[in-house]
Amino acid sequence: MAWHRTGGIELERLIQLLSRLPGLGPRSARRAALSLLAEPERRLVPLAQAMQEAAARIQSCEVCGTLDVTNPCMICSDPDRDHSVICVVEHVSDLWALERAMVHRGVYQVLGGTLSALLGRGPEELNTQSLFRRVGSDGVSEVILALGATVDGAATSHWLEDRLARYDVTVTRVGRGVPMGGTLDGLDDGTLVAALMARRPVARDDG
Amino acid sequence: MAWHRTGGIELERLIQLLSRLPGLGPRSARRAALSLLAEPERRLVPLAQAMQEAAARIQSCEVCGTLDVTNPCMICSDPDRDHSVICVVEHVSDLWALERAMVHRGVYQVLGGTLSALLGRGPEELNTQSLFRRVGSDGVSEVILALGATVDGAATSHWLEDRLARYDVTVTRVGRGVPMGGTLDGLDDGTLVAALMARRPVARDDG
Ligand SMILES: [Zn+2]
Ligand SMILES: [Zn+2]
Repeated sequence: MAWHRTGGIELERLIQLLSRLPGLGPRSARRAALSLLAEPERRLVPLAQAMQEAAARIQSCEVCGTLDVTNPCMICSDPDRDHSVICVVEHVSDLWALERAMVHRGVYQVLGGTLSALLGRGPEELNTQSLFRRVGSDGVSEVILALGATVDGAATSHWLEDRLARYDVTVTRVGRGVPMGGTLDGLDDGTLVAALMARRPVARDDG
Repeated sequence: MAWHRTGGIELERLIQLLSRLPGLGPRSARRAALSLLAEPERRLVPLAQAMQEAAARIQSCEVCGTLDVTNPCMICSDPDRDHSVICVVEHVSDLWALERAMVHRGVYQVLGGTLSALLGRGPEELNTQSLFRRVGSDGVSEVILALGATVDGAATSHWLEDRLARYDVTVTRVGRGVPMGGTLDGLDDGTLVAALMARRPVARDDG
C-alpha cells in the first residue's frame, strides 16, 4: 500500500477504512477519499461528525434488536402499532424494507442473521431471547417469519417453527413473492406487500 | 426519506452523507451504514476518527497542488527527485496512478481539472500559477503534459503549450498508450510506462 504514501499515513488509513465499506473497492475508496478531501469543510467534516454522533447515539433496541436512538426503539414504543403480531426478519435492512412498503403494522424481531451450517453459526448467535420472552408473555397472537428464501433462511424458519410450537401462538411464513435465493431487502414494495398478504400458517406436527 | 426514520435523524443524516460518495447510491449507503453500525467501536468510530484527522492534517501542496500532510508535499520536498522535470496531471488520482507505476522520477503539477467549454471552466480555475512560477525560475528543463485523451484534456494541453511557449523549456505530451476518451487514473502500469516512454516534444510555432 506504499503507492499513495505521498498523502501520509492519514490518507492511507482513510482509504483503507473506506475500502472496507460494502460496495467500495480500493479504487472507489480512493475516489471517495479524494472527493471528500476536495471540500473538507463541506463534505469530510460533516460526514465524520455524523459518524461520531451515530456511534454515540444509535444502539440496538433491547426488545426487537433494530437500530435506533431510543431504547426501546420508536416502533417498540409506539402504542399505535399492533404489538400482538411480531414479524421476524434477518437484518435491520429487511425491517427498513418492510417499513418503506408500509405493509406491516405490527412489531418486529431482528435476528441479526440466520443459522448457517457453512459459517458455523448456531442459534446462540441469533437475537432470539427477547422473541421467546415476548411470545411467552401474554398478548402475542402471531409470529410472521419473514426470512429470506435462501437455504439458511429456510433452515432458520424451520428451527424457529420448532421452537415456537411450544407457545400458544400462530406461526406464519411469508409465502409467494420472495423469489428463490432472494432476500427481502431489495424487493420492490409491491412484491413485499404480496408476500406478506400471502402468508400462511405453518403446519404444526403436534405430536 | 421518512422510511428509515426509525433510526432517528442521526441515521438518516449518516446515510444521506454516505450516499453522496462517488460509487455509493442510496441502497449501498444504507448497507454501508448498517455494516458500520454493526460494529461501532471497531468500524464506525475508527473511520470517523480517520476522517477527522484527514480533515485536520491533509492539505494541498502550495507548490504542486497534491494532497499531503506536509506542505510542500513529500514529493516536492524530496531532494532525490528530479525537480527539472514537471509532469502536469489533471487530478491527484492521476499523480497516484503514475506513482504506483513508478514511471516518473520528476515532480508534478496537479491542475485540479481541465478547461471545459461545456462546464464553463476557464484557466483561472486551474492550479497553474505555481506551474508558471516554477517554469519561469531556473532549473526546469521539461514539462510533460499528462492529461487525459479527452476533448477537454486536449484543449487544456493546447492552452498550456501556448502559454509555455514563452518559456525556455521543452514541452512534451504523453503519447501512445492513453486510449482515446480515457483518463490516466485507471490505466494499468504497463500502459502508463509506455505512454510516458513514448512522449514527444510538442511542435512549436515560434513566429
Ligand atoms: Zn424495538
Ligand atoms: Zn507538492
